[in-house]
Amino acid sequence: MTNQQEATATVSLPADPGALSPAEARAVFRSGLAVPTAGWSRGFAQANLIIVPRELAFDVLLFAQRNPKPCPILGVLDAGETTGPLLAGGDIRTDVPRYTVYRDGQKVDEPTDINEYWRDDLVTFIVGCSFTFESALREGGISIAHIDQGVNVPMYRTSVRCEPAGSMSGPLVVSMRPIPASQVSDAVRITSRYPAVHGAPVHVGNPHELGIADLSRPDFGDPVQIAEGHIPVFWACGVTPQAAVMESRPALAIGHAPGHMLITDARDSDYLVP
Amino acid sequence: MTNQQEATATVSLPADPGALSPAEARAVFRSGLAVPTAGWSRGFAQANLIIVPRELAFDVLLFAQRNPKPCPILGVLDAGETTGPLLAGGDIRTDVPRYTVYRDGQKVDEPTDINEYWRDDLVTFIVGCSFTFESALREGGISIAHIDQGVNVPMYRTSVRCEPAGSMSGPLVVSMRPIPASQVSDAVRITSRYPAVHGAPVHVGNPHELGIADLSRPDFGDPVQIAEGHIPVFWACGVTPQAAVMESRPALAIGHAPGHMLITDARDSDYLVP
Repeated sequence: MTNQQEATATVSLPADPGALSPAEARAVFRSGLAVPTAGWSRGFAQANLIIVPRELAFDVLLFAQRNPKPCPILGVLDAGETTGPLLAGGDIRTDVPRYTVYRDGQKVDEPTDINEYWRDDLVTFIVGCSFTFESALREGGISIAHIDQGVNVPMYRTSVRCEPAGSMSGPLVVSMRPIPASQVSDAVRITSRYPAVHGAPVHVGNPHELGIADLSRPDFGDPVQIAEGHIPVFWACGVTPQAAVMESRPALAIGHAPGHMLITDARDSDYLVP
Repeated sequence: MTNQQEATATVSLPADPGALSPAEARAVFRSGLAVPTAGWSRGFAQANLIIVPRELAFDVLLFAQRNPKPCPILGVLDAGETTGPLLAGGDIRTDVPRYTVYRDGQKVDEPTDINEYWRDDLVTFIVGCSFTFESALREGGISIAHIDQGVNVPMYRTSVRCEPAGSMSGPLVVSMRPIPASQVSDAVRITSRYPAVHGAPVHVGNPHELGIADLSRPDFGDPVQIAEGHIPVFWACGVTPQAAVMESRPALAIGHAPGHMLITDARDSDYLVP
């Protein structure tokens, strides 16, 4: 609750964040509120961020092309651009609730805006997020543990290596949702229809095969309780590029803080395949 | 028939090109045969090529990301790499039947290999091709005019502009297949299941809206006869990056010659979504 307490000192939480338009939500975050975005602007796609200097941009884009499940690119703001069609009228430097700043692969700051870090050679990659298919899962009768338990989704570094690209290499990061055994098939089927936002699960059932020793200790986000008869199901996660940045150690890189996403003007349904 | 005559002087056409494995087909082209690849290595995906210097590679990859229907990237060989998983044991400099070499946006050569043009800073983009869904259309009972008529698919520059990316900008290029009116819906449905190889049509029925004045005069490939009651249906085409190269005028760029594709080790069915 630390982030929330700090933020609500200056900007108050809207009564119904889910009813805000994406532009309204971004304006709230621009004013300094720093809370996780789950449930905000219902029906609109939320996204991960990775921002790097132009000299690293080809490697990042190629890394994404070679690892489309964890790194589905929804949009790119070219060097120095601070807005674009996914955030009409917005500003990528201020409109995400909280950022993570890396220098030489080390996290050095978690600011609520990145004005002081901005440079005209920074390229912004907007990466799909599995929050997009969560409403489809719920409409399909599948409850989402981390939403029901009021916490951030648990995310894990795995022992699976991504395909490297130039200077970029790193582990696959996954998000986990426990699913009742009788609904695993439905969860695969529903999420496979969203290939642009991680799509079908990468693994079902055995965390040890992914090199995850303890589900109760996620590397990002919060642990969730796994009910009797539920199977842990793993989806590729958009934090993967940040894990690669931490390994590749560029002089500067900026991401969102996990769970604190960019709320885009794209609708969840835009990413549904027929 | 000029290419074919020139080539068969040195390498003879296999008896059943459709039965060759992709590696066998690439070996034949490596030996110098220069014929269109329609019908070769049945069941395996054929691909467009665009090869540019490293300094232009981010712009090309971003152009592809912003224009995924005409430019679906299947694979990238990083600077200086001449082989990769899509052409195991192959060599991108020799394994395509015929290439097109551009200097400052002008076509200067159409060689059967690019050994003399190769440089260690060249990056190769392997781009999806609509040939991949033609067998699915035929299995769906839809005949393909250019196959039945034994010619190359007709392709047209349109008045539709692609989303630019850095130095890369240009028109959307489309391929056209005339489809019986009663089967247009089936053709849309079937090809929409192949989003990685151009997917659903971009336009149905009115060439003038695309700025195409005369269907009998394609900009690339051959004209086809359009039977009574058939509707011209247009799909985004992987020649689009070459059209952008011609506008953007980099010092050097290399593509395949239209219809003379790279035969990859990927199966057509690899690009079918569920």
